Amino acid sequence: MSGKEIHFVTGCAGFIGSNLTDRLLSAGYKVIGYDNFSTGKEKFLENALKSQNFSLIRGDLLDFDFLKKSLKGGTVWHFAANADVRFGLQKPRIDLEQNTIATSNVLEAARINGVHTFCFSSTGSIYGEAKITPTPEEHPFPIQTSLYGASKLACEGLIEAYCEGFNMRGIIFRFVSILGERYAHGHVFDFVRQLKKDAKTLKVLGDGNQKKSYLYIQDCINACFKALEKTKNKIEIYNLGADEYVSVKDSISYICARLGVEPALEFSGGNKGWIGDNPFIFLETAKIKSLGWKAGLSIKEAVEKTVDYLLKNIWILGD
Amino acid sequence: MSGKEIHFVTGCAGFIGSNLTDRLLSAGYKVIGYDNFSTGKEKFLENALKSQNFSLIRGDLLDFDFLKKSLKGGTVWHFAANADVRFGLQKPRIDLEQNTIATSNVLEAARINGVHTFCFSSTGSIYGEAKITPTPEEHPFPIQTSLYGASKLACEGLIEAYCEGFNMRGIIFRFVSILGERYAHGHVFDFVRQLKKDAKTLKVLGDGNQKKSYLYIQDCINACFKALEKTKNKIEIYNLGADEYVSVKDSISYICARLGVEPALEFSGGNKGWIGDNPFIFLETAKIKSLGWKAGLSIKEAVEKTVDYLLKNIWILGD
Repeated sequence: MSGKEIHFVTGCAGFIGSNLTDRLLSAGYKVIGYDNFSTGKEKFLENALKSQNFSLIRGDLLDFDFLKKSLKGGTVWHFAANADVRFGLQKPRIDLEQNTIATSNVLEAARINGVHTFCFSSTGSIYGEAKITPTPEEHPFPIQTSLYGASKLACEGLIEAYCEGFNMRGIIFRFVSILGERYAHGHVFDFVRQLKKDAKTLKVLGDGNQKKSYLYIQDCINACFKALEKTKNKIEIYNLGADEYVSVKDSISYICARLGVEPALEFSGGNKGWIGDNPFIFLETAKIKSLGWKAGLSIKEAVEKTVDYLLKNIWILGD
Repeated sequence: MSGKEIHFVTGCAGFIGSNLTDRLLSAGYKVIGYDNFSTGKEKFLENALKSQNFSLIRGDLLDFDFLKKSLKGGTVWHFAANADVRFGLQKPRIDLEQNTIATSNVLEAARINGVHTFCFSSTGSIYGEAKITPTPEEHPFPIQTSLYGASKLACEGLIEAYCEGFNMRGIIFRFVSILGERYAHGHVFDFVRQLKKDAKTLKVLGDGNQKKSYLYIQDCINACFKALEKTKNKIEIYNLGADEYVSVKDSISYICARLGVEPALEFSGGNKGWIGDNPFIFLETAKIKSLGWKAGLSIKEAVEKTVDYLLKNIWILGD
């Protein structure tokens, strides 16, 4: 990939958005990043801000008039989101506002500004408790189990209808949990933070047998680039994940070995970490692999890289 | 069904909502109806307003504080919607606001007020251009082709996540187009209105070969009542439609015969009536039939009943 086309990245200061921004800049693109810094971090843009090809816009996606004036480019990467699946029930509006309504705003601004390609970070949570694993993109019509998954489902539908009606190209990625540099929430984060405070005990949501797939951030972005290059149809949906899964207990063993600790494990119990948690997430990735992509790191390597990153960037753990 | 439980009906002055309201009152329930009369009609509530068991609240679903204060009952029938699939692209916000955000408001008000059962009018349009016909509820994950379908998909996801998280029972109906008394928009309406003005020519969207299934309103409500009575699971989704489909040309022939006219047909051309129109809608209804329901009227009889209704209630055609 090369050239000077403008790419507009929402959530450019987030975990995935900032890595994407750096990679787009490395590939020679101009990038306009848009972020409200509600969870995004200035530090993640240190590299990008050194580039003449990058401009940063501080704005909220719910401020439609400002967004409409700000959005430019041929390709939009809409990667801003409320990305925490766990807290939907405590704040039942947050996923609707930050995900569904925000996405509607980005689509409408993209349409008005003549964007030709709309890339979107969806989620494997959209399959709910999948009946088929590894779960293919054409899994039977799923039942949503979380407001987060429901909001991403709503976003996907909006993108598809916009592409159908306004002749944009839509590329939707259903991610598993992503790991690696700038990872700033999720189970590895929680466990490392706990163990840095007290290496003797580790509290674990559920029974530790939840099985999930993960993907290393640079592998994730390689897949996004491959899909951008190869997608011919008006709409394509790609699962992104590793060819394997691990249990929470497996992941704990990788983390503890890397940290050199042997805590006692305290399980909250039950087969789910929280209401709406899916005890088995493992996606079929034949479709993205058919484009010539494959993951470079195993889940174990990705967990280890994440632990190393957190230890080198201890500020991220907060308090 | 009998008893004095309160049923809360949104869109109580609409085509389906007002028929439902009358039937609930006949069954002995107390009904609170909520409508903003944006498309609902006072006349449709003439019967209901005679009942001591009915109370009408004029309100907008987007006025959450008022809705929250107004909503009461054990069962909510959320049947208010922007129900016109055709105009989403001209007004890209209308389906998001009137359907998705409105449904989120009704769910939140229902949760706060301790509702146990949430019934919802979804649509066969949610299957997009279905790959399987007759289309089963568990059709592979569909691609949305209209903002209307996308908004109903979003509503379904919200309802499922609420039921999972807050232990409500959710009953989702995916309707084909409904016909019968108080029918006030759709192809039979358009054709009768055209032919009352000029019986010599009839303008038809598409090539007339679009194939669709329909259902008579009283059969539809019988199915809703059956599902309410028999649904045991936290979430059930039921397709509702006839065991047959007809082409637009078939339907024109029934309408013209009933009116005693023989117009020349002018087709706009193409296999779709509009962008996002699905040229073949026919739903698998084995699931609702397994509860002991079946349709009483054929599509031809339903079309004829609709024509008769429109001729007796010519005010509905407007201008």
